[in-house]
Amino acid sequence: MIPVGIVGFSGYSGAELVHILSRHPHVEPVLLEHREEEPSNFPGPRRLPYSADTGLPLVFLATPPEVSIELAPGLLDAGSKVIDLSGAFRLGTAGNYQRWYKATHPRLDLLAEAAYGLPEFYRSTIPGKRLIANPGCYPTAANLALRPLLEAGVIDRAAGIVCDAKSGVSGAGRKPTLKTSFCEVTDNFSAYSVLEHRHVPEILRTSGLEEAELSFTAQLLPIERGILETIYFRALNEHNFVKIYLDRYLNDHFVRIYPEGRFPDLRAVARTNFCDIGVHVDAKTRRGVVVVAIDNLVKGAAGMAVQNMNLALGFPETAGLL
Amino acid sequence: MIPVGIVGFSGYSGAELVHILSRHPHVEPVLLEHREEEPSNFPGPRRLPYSADTGLPLVFLATPPEVSIELAPGLLDAGSKVIDLSGAFRLGTAGNYQRWYKATHPRLDLLAEAAYGLPEFYRSTIPGKRLIANPGCYPTAANLALRPLLEAGVIDRAAGIVCDAKSGVSGAGRKPTLKTSFCEVTDNFSAYSVLEHRHVPEILRTSGLEEAELSFTAQLLPIERGILETIYFRALNEHNFVKIYLDRYLNDHFVRIYPEGRFPDLRAVARTNFCDIGVHVDAKTRRGVVVVAIDNLVKGAAGMAVQNMNLALGFPETAGLL
Amino acid sequence: MIPVGIVGFSGYSGAELVHILSRHPHVEPVLLEHREEEPSNFPGPRRLPYSADTGLPLVFLATPPEVSIELAPGLLDAGSKVIDLSGAFRLGTAGNYQRWYKATHPRLDLLAEAAYGLPEFYRSTIPGKRLIANPGCYPTAANLALRPLLEAGVIDRAAGIVCDAKSGVSGAGRKPTLKTSFCEVTDNFSAYSVLEHRHVPEILRTSGLEEAELSFTAQLLPIERGILETIYFRALNEHNFVKIYLDRYLNDHFVRIYPEGRFPDLRAVARTNFCDIGVHVDAKTRRGVVVVAIDNLVKGAAGMAVQNMNLALGFPETAGLL
Amino acid sequence: MIPVGIVGFSGYSGAELVHILSRHPHVEPVLLEHREEEPSNFPGPRRLPYSADTGLPLVFLATPPEVSIELAPGLLDAGSKVIDLSGAFRLGTAGNYQRWYKATHPRLDLLAEAAYGLPEFYRSTIPGKRLIANPGCYPTAANLALRPLLEAGVIDRAAGIVCDAKSGVSGAGRKPTLKTSFCEVTDNFSAYSVLEHRHVPEILRTSGLEEAELSFTAQLLPIERGILETIYFRALNEHNFVKIYLDRYLNDHFVRIYPEGRFPDLRAVARTNFCDIGVHVDAKTRRGVVVVAIDNLVKGAAGMAVQNMNLALGFPETAGLL
Repeated sequence: MIPVGIVGFSGYSGAELVHILSRHPHVEPVLLEHREEEPSNFPGPRRLPYSADTGLPLVFLATPPEVSIELAPGLLDAGSKVIDLSGAFRLGTAGNYQRWYKATHPRLDLLAEAAYGLPEFYRSTIPGKRLIANPGCYPTAANLALRPLLEAGVIDRAAGIVCDAKSGVSGAGRKPTLKTSFCEVTDNFSAYSVLEHRHVPEILRTSGLEEAELSFTAQLLPIERGILETIYFRALNEHNFVKIYLDRYLNDHFVRIYPEGRFPDLRAVARTNFCDIGVHVDAKTRRGVVVVAIDNLVKGAAGMAVQNMNLALGFPETAGLL
Repeated sequence: MIPVGIVGFSGYSGAELVHILSRHPHVEPVLLEHREEEPSNFPGPRRLPYSADTGLPLVFLATPPEVSIELAPGLLDAGSKVIDLSGAFRLGTAGNYQRWYKATHPRLDLLAEAAYGLPEFYRSTIPGKRLIANPGCYPTAANLALRPLLEAGVIDRAAGIVCDAKSGVSGAGRKPTLKTSFCEVTDNFSAYSVLEHRHVPEILRTSGLEEAELSFTAQLLPIERGILETIYFRALNEHNFVKIYLDRYLNDHFVRIYPEGRFPDLRAVARTNFCDIGVHVDAKTRRGVVVVAIDNLVKGAAGMAVQNMNLALGFPETAGLL
Repeated sequence: MIPVGIVGFSGYSGAELVHILSRHPHVEPVLLEHREEEPSNFPGPRRLPYSADTGLPLVFLATPPEVSIELAPGLLDAGSKVIDLSGAFRLGTAGNYQRWYKATHPRLDLLAEAAYGLPEFYRSTIPGKRLIANPGCYPTAANLALRPLLEAGVIDRAAGIVCDAKSGVSGAGRKPTLKTSFCEVTDNFSAYSVLEHRHVPEILRTSGLEEAELSFTAQLLPIERGILETIYFRALNEHNFVKIYLDRYLNDHFVRIYPEGRFPDLRAVARTNFCDIGVHVDAKTRRGVVVVAIDNLVKGAAGMAVQNMNLALGFPETAGLL
Repeated sequence: MIPVGIVGFSGYSGAELVHILSRHPHVEPVLLEHREEEPSNFPGPRRLPYSADTGLPLVFLATPPEVSIELAPGLLDAGSKVIDLSGAFRLGTAGNYQRWYKATHPRLDLLAEAAYGLPEFYRSTIPGKRLIANPGCYPTAANLALRPLLEAGVIDRAAGIVCDAKSGVSGAGRKPTLKTSFCEVTDNFSAYSVLEHRHVPEILRTSGLEEAELSFTAQLLPIERGILETIYFRALNEHNFVKIYLDRYLNDHFVRIYPEGRFPDLRAVARTNFCDIGVHVDAKTRRGVVVVAIDNLVKGAAGMAVQNMNLALGFPETAGLL
């Protein structure tokens, strides 16, 4: 068993990583204590104080972007591959980072160097990279749903595309805030970051859409986990939209396409690495709707990170994820 | 106190009606037992076996459409005003009813005669009518949000309008089904009736939109009550959208407009007769988003029915609703 | 309308107080800003910076105990009556306060002077007092359920009494903590303060039980509001237990007794000032069970506080609470 | 891979069985369609029409008791081992079955023959049996918590034992009912079968308690899965109660004992086959509290059934369950 490190293992994505890696056939998790962490009631994976120089072949950073920016360079210098689950290395350009994360990125070289870890579209680029930016949860669902249709050229981009996104609360992280308190969230539903969510540039970058072509709103569901996005578009012509998806994802194990007229719900993907897609286009009026669902902590974070690790370390892509 | 009847008082809308009417300053509820109903643990409003000939000045039908079609004629013949909470008399034409309710409407005269009980737009027509069709929950939110912008001519209708709607489970009624079972709904979120919900024709009829111009999807929230709709449009020009709403609803007590950049959530309207609206338009790209929230059992059903009753019986419009 | 003050109006109990008082027929709430408070989207009750010297006839303190201890003396000196919703003045003795609140109480005079605001047992003492300690939520339910049986002498105290208590999350207050975060509470249920909850001495003091006779465990329900306690005892003889309760609470509007074999649930009392009680004793084995339910924010806090205010200011006891 | 059958695979326990068995290293599930079942969106385990004569070495019955009584004899006659998840074969005597299931049991021979599948206490009896009655969910938690203390003779039985039990809704099965409808359960908590739950005789039979010594109440939590029982007793003497449990379960992989002062919650056991136990006894007053938690669908049903299958077919007891 090859040891791999996890920093931020008490957060929701980090804990999910530990859960998945503990059952992985080829690796074993090593918990790297960067901040003070709660003790465990029962024996679990090995814990070490954080150090860049662990000799581990790969380290996951399940940390806020500013911590990832602080830790990644040292780990890379020490020879570890890094898979970062934050937004620190996803946006490609300094300008993008400045605009959406309201901070100056100190390592433009790493920003440029990082692979964007969306295997369904960038599979071949991942094995050779030492730094992999694991995609954001909302963009993962949006890009897997949108890009096949955009590549096929069947959407009227001028009419605009709407992505109405809903997420469980774990997407906001484990740090207590009033917005994520039980009594504020339960029996409630609310929109936030209307048109201005910092996951938007990830969607634009991968899909090739212009900002003016996409309306994206994030919303908070009173559940722990899951993202469902309802995407609206105008079709250019008649097509078999289900077939476009089936063809595109023929060799992608983790994307499942529903028969015409059926749509995924969050239960279908909970605690799995699947991305489920259903599509319906009204032939007469060309109004199209895609419903796409993932578990934000798995395909939207930890599961995808393990999928990327499998590619980076040369394991079968589905190892530990079925 | 004037007695008013309620048929279907054990359903969720019916029970909400009883709750509101029990605190109304001018009327008292009389429960009309049409089907066998559960007994109550404690004393409550008077119960009578159902009869059309009660001599009550007004009767609420909180019944399925087929029951409303069965009961309304007798009540009207006996001289009672009727406020029907079902879809039986909302759609205006036989063709509409046939298409969306999959049944032939036996009383086209009543379909034509009924007032559509949306006081914010049809206030003056309600007092003179003996049959009032209380609006559907989704259309109430959609029409209150859309029609002011359409009347002001500030939306690019050719680009299409998206209404992404989410509802609590009480909207599906109290009859047990697998779809509304606790274990199927909790921790879940799902789309249904994609582009084909039978509330669509009510939105088209009131807003004046064509079917091709509106994409409407209904979705089930894991909460008891509340509807939130996120509406996307393309603006034709720069406008002060908040002011359009403020001006339009200056004299409507139950519609509240949020300051620019703020949006309602479901808690803001729970157990109230308010319809809350927040709007944001990105000046550069003209992408617009409206968030509108109501309590589906109050403004979307029982509260609106009492508002209509107040108009029909000559009470202040807000009586019993604040 | 007589103005009454509220300090701590943004907390869950405080907000419930504002909600109830806004519909009270004889008083109007005045919000006293002691700490910085969030602004409101819409107009609401009058707000004033906190001052002890407001001239208000009565002020509610919906504040933590240490803040209540700080503010109450000044308000009393300025001539306001004070109803305190915290535990600051409930325990009667300095020793009790030291043991359960882990702090020295600086005002033993006020501790001794305060009325314990449980009208069902101490109604006559309340009007003459200037300081009323509103009871804790758990003790309110426990004492209303236990004391009639203890007074009637029908419980075998030597066999011990178990009170298994469950509360919604709002009982923990609005300050964000990990324990009350949505993702920690939802889909979960947990015991806390096993045998050592600081509400225990309030139960002992009112019921007359010894600590060794009562086993009390608090538990957290994944809901916003409501307390349900399941109380187990051994009966001394055969009795009509339902009748014991009915007789005892004949003149108490807010306590409702269920017929034999029926028990309240939390929905029965949500958003009401009722305390609902159901009792069953197995005649053969003398095992007895009482189920008691209240809304922790209403009968367990704000509603009870208004009931006490009604007594203190000479209004009908049920004013604003039906 | 050895094929094993499942009847009732669409119910909640049945679906959990399919989920567990699909990842088992030594067996593969075969779905036996006894009633009409929903189709699946994606490929899954093999499906066959139900027949007693399948030649399968073992069949799970995740069916109501009356269906299990109907099917078990034929399967046994055809040479399959049967693990029944219902209450059909758990109670040992005809009288017990008549009293608690309100029906006459037609096969007293099988009632007498069946092993009670609680490996932690009856491990050695399971391999030789052809019919295994999988324990009820409530009794599994209660017996694992109570029997070690009763065996150790440290509980004052004369003072009575209270077991206050709370269960998620999946325990009530998948058939839609008003009691398990979302809007009735959410934001609610309720007691049912007070002192009279049909799981009581299973607790008595395994623990050796008399009915008069145990007060058991079942309650419905607004969550999908999980059982937590809070058990109250009077200790006879001073003991190290944690150590009693640790010693007793030294060789039982699926029972975990918490350090003194710590207690399990439902998250600790969700989707696992663990039974977690925490105990606290107040030395001065001898009041004792045990908190025990399981996942009702896993250790309380499907996981336990697989544990029994592992014993019955000679696999390692933990196979497929970690």
